[in-house]
Amino acid sequence: MSKRFRYCIIGAGAAGLAALKTLRDLGIAAECFEKAAKPGGHWHHDYDALHLITPKNSSFFDDFPMPADYPLYPSRQQVCDYIQSYVDAFQLHEHIHYHSAIEQIVPQGEQGEGGWQVWVNGEARHFDGVLVANGHLWDPALPPQAADFQGISLHSAAYRNTRQIKGKVLVVGFGNSGCDLAVDAAQQRFDTTIVMRRGQVFQPKALFGMPRAELPFINELPAELQNSLMQVLIMASLGNWKNYPGMPQPDSFNLDEQPPVVNNLLLYWIQHGRIAIKPAITAIENKTVTFSDGSQQQYDTILWATGFHTRLPFLADELLEWQLGVPLRTAGMTLPTRLENLWFVGLAAPRGAQWPVYCAQTRLIARMIELKQQGMRNLAGLFARQQVAETRIDIVRRIWQLNMDETHRTLDMLTSLSRDDYQPVVAHSY
Amino acid sequence: MSKRFRYCIIGAGAAGLAALKTLRDLGIAAECFEKAAKPGGHWHHDYDALHLITPKNSSFFDDFPMPADYPLYPSRQQVCDYIQSYVDAFQLHEHIHYHSAIEQIVPQGEQGEGGWQVWVNGEARHFDGVLVANGHLWDPALPPQAADFQGISLHSAAYRNTRQIKGKVLVVGFGNSGCDLAVDAAQQRFDTTIVMRRGQVFQPKALFGMPRAELPFINELPAELQNSLMQVLIMASLGNWKNYPGMPQPDSFNLDEQPPVVNNLLLYWIQHGRIAIKPAITAIENKTVTFSDGSQQQYDTILWATGFHTRLPFLADELLEWQLGVPLRTAGMTLPTRLENLWFVGLAAPRGAQWPVYCAQTRLIARMIELKQQGMRNLAGLFARQQVAETRIDIVRRIWQLNMDETHRTLDMLTSLSRDDYQPVVAHSY
Repeated sequence: MSKRFRYCIIGAGAAGLAALKTLRDLGIAAECFEKAAKPGGHWHHDYDALHLITPKNSSFFDDFPMPADYPLYPSRQQVCDYIQSYVDAFQLHEHIHYHSAIEQIVPQGEQGEGGWQVWVNGEARHFDGVLVANGHLWDPALPPQAADFQGISLHSAAYRNTRQIKGKVLVVGFGNSGCDLAVDAAQQRFDTTIVMRRGQVFQPKALFGMPRAELPFINELPAELQNSLMQVLIMASLGNWKNYPGMPQPDSFNLDEQPPVVNNLLLYWIQHGRIAIKPAITAIENKTVTFSDGSQQQYDTILWATGFHTRLPFLADELLEWQLGVPLRTAGMTLPTRLENLWFVGLAAPRGAQWPVYCAQTRLIARMIELKQQGMRNLAGLFARQQVAETRIDIVRRIWQLNMDETHRTLDMLTSLSRDDYQPVVAHSY
Repeated sequence: MSKRFRYCIIGAGAAGLAALKTLRDLGIAAECFEKAAKPGGHWHHDYDALHLITPKNSSFFDDFPMPADYPLYPSRQQVCDYIQSYVDAFQLHEHIHYHSAIEQIVPQGEQGEGGWQVWVNGEARHFDGVLVANGHLWDPALPPQAADFQGISLHSAAYRNTRQIKGKVLVVGFGNSGCDLAVDAAQQRFDTTIVMRRGQVFQPKALFGMPRAELPFINELPAELQNSLMQVLIMASLGNWKNYPGMPQPDSFNLDEQPPVVNNLLLYWIQHGRIAIKPAITAIENKTVTFSDGSQQQYDTILWATGFHTRLPFLADELLEWQLGVPLRTAGMTLPTRLENLWFVGLAAPRGAQWPVYCAQTRLIARMIELKQQGMRNLAGLFARQQVAETRIDIVRRIWQLNMDETHRTLDMLTSLSRDDYQPVVAHSY
């Protein structure tokens, strides 16, 4: 090949590392830029109580199982060590620039058909394409009320452990982080309340002593029956909202129609009186919180487990189509709808283990890279016309997998396309 | 009634208090002697992490439900407060002597047919009968190896919280206390190992979000089907020993054939790598523990959750028939096999809520008291011939209940017995 193509990967978290290793294995030259001093991303500064939600048996980078002596659900520190050993095992370090926050990426040609100019450490470099793996769990989303609270106020992103908190604790949000934070506070004997402004079917981490992903007899059922059986098993294991005083009724019992929140301990401590439930916050004044049922209570600490904004600070927002705060994507959630030679790795959370997703996305991207190198133009536009672009990040895994499969078939077709297949007729005016 | 009968109750723990209230409600004069300064027994000095294992909906003294704002599984402190409020509500204080350890009780007549001489605070008093409610969870049973350990060594009876421990922690014993202690240490981020020298089917605290006792559709099944369904539900919820690395296979999956150990969290933290399992201890030297698989490990702390001896320090052991360290009893486990006018309240743990057991036992005892007052002799001997005496303390509740029912029927019969029913024939020699 006369021209030497080079690709830029933004971020050396799990997604960026998976992208780097996968591209290089396929012979595609790539460099990774990481703003921090080491690889691993958010795992280094997540809260101490964090364990992997998905089991180690399915949660690993391609070609790199977790150590045999790891528990089924490794701790945050074990995950950090695992990621570090991945970098070491495949000698990824030499392809990563640390302390290198990407300042700006600029499309060459209106949509990046000519590649991308990448600004880092005050210098511009040219890349034939960019893989964006900067994460979507770093820019805290806080409700406006948060500014009114005069006690200790921490977003989950800043929370490490109970040494940061004191007194009566209110946790706002009941996603996976909110549950973990409430449980952490309760287990350290803080008077703990969690805000639940709607119901939720909480899923146990294991059924039959095994993680969901390891229950093959369930996974082989038709989707509808999978859901029904899961509902029954969850009910047998954890009951329903009525068993937990103060819990609102879920809008749906269909697991596909609500975020997946996997937590046994929240429910356990609610039944032991160590975590109370309150409805939505309507106002905060000084340290007094007013709830939608009219009740008021003083708190010393509020932990905001209220999620994150998706942000791409290095890319002009108007270059992407945004919906509900997320750029629209096709092709397994990797491809923006109107930019060329730019892909996302990891701006997708198909339910279940995440690291295999990053590897699979990168293999898909590698096929698109090959097509682009062979001269295919307007790939983003083609897929935007073929597929319904996704605004979600959380997605039922089998839905995402169907889209991955369809995308691979489309790429098969595009790859086999020759000039003979398509002879544009020049339009004449009569 | 010409003679005024008086009864002595030993201990003002939950069992003694239930006995005092129940006897007095039935018009039977009773006084309670308590060695401590307040009522409530072991609940005052149990470990901080203790919650009631059985739910508040079934766990209460007759006529005295737990407060409506209590959680399903109240904490140790809430139980203490509940017991105190029971004493206050029924004005039991005036019938309790505090700081009054019973020194000795001496049968009047060889077996106590003439009542009992009770020595307390250096003085002897006569009572027509004694109800022994001194508890069976206060005299720590330690294996001989315990003396060899040079680190921090605490029996569960002396354990309060993790401020007492440090470093690498080994918990010996996997009954309810052993599980609680291991979980407490693990949740406070101690490196924790539990010794399991045999397997165990751990039961979840709740199924369908409800305590076992509140699953009426299960309780209405025949006993054998109850067990089968429970096994299936436990398996669906928690799996089996294979799902927990290092756990030995249980000798049986029949819940009736093993101690009831109710704990979700031990299994949870094992799967998260926060509690490890080791087999039986074969030797201890200084801080090094050798296990039956040949492995050795240093520990800084050993917590011995190795149970308790049953002791009646105020009663000459030879007056009772002992087997496996427990006095033999009939009649709902209240009646020793060869002593009259002496009963046990609470030396029995029919699976499920305990406080109703104490009340039911006392109502049964009250019937025997009435018979004794009417002149019935050798009641203990009669029951010892009619029933197989129990050596157990832990007993499947329906087995205990069957024995209670049978005992009530026998008492019906004995109560209706008149001189006309039985005319002894004097034996002649020809």
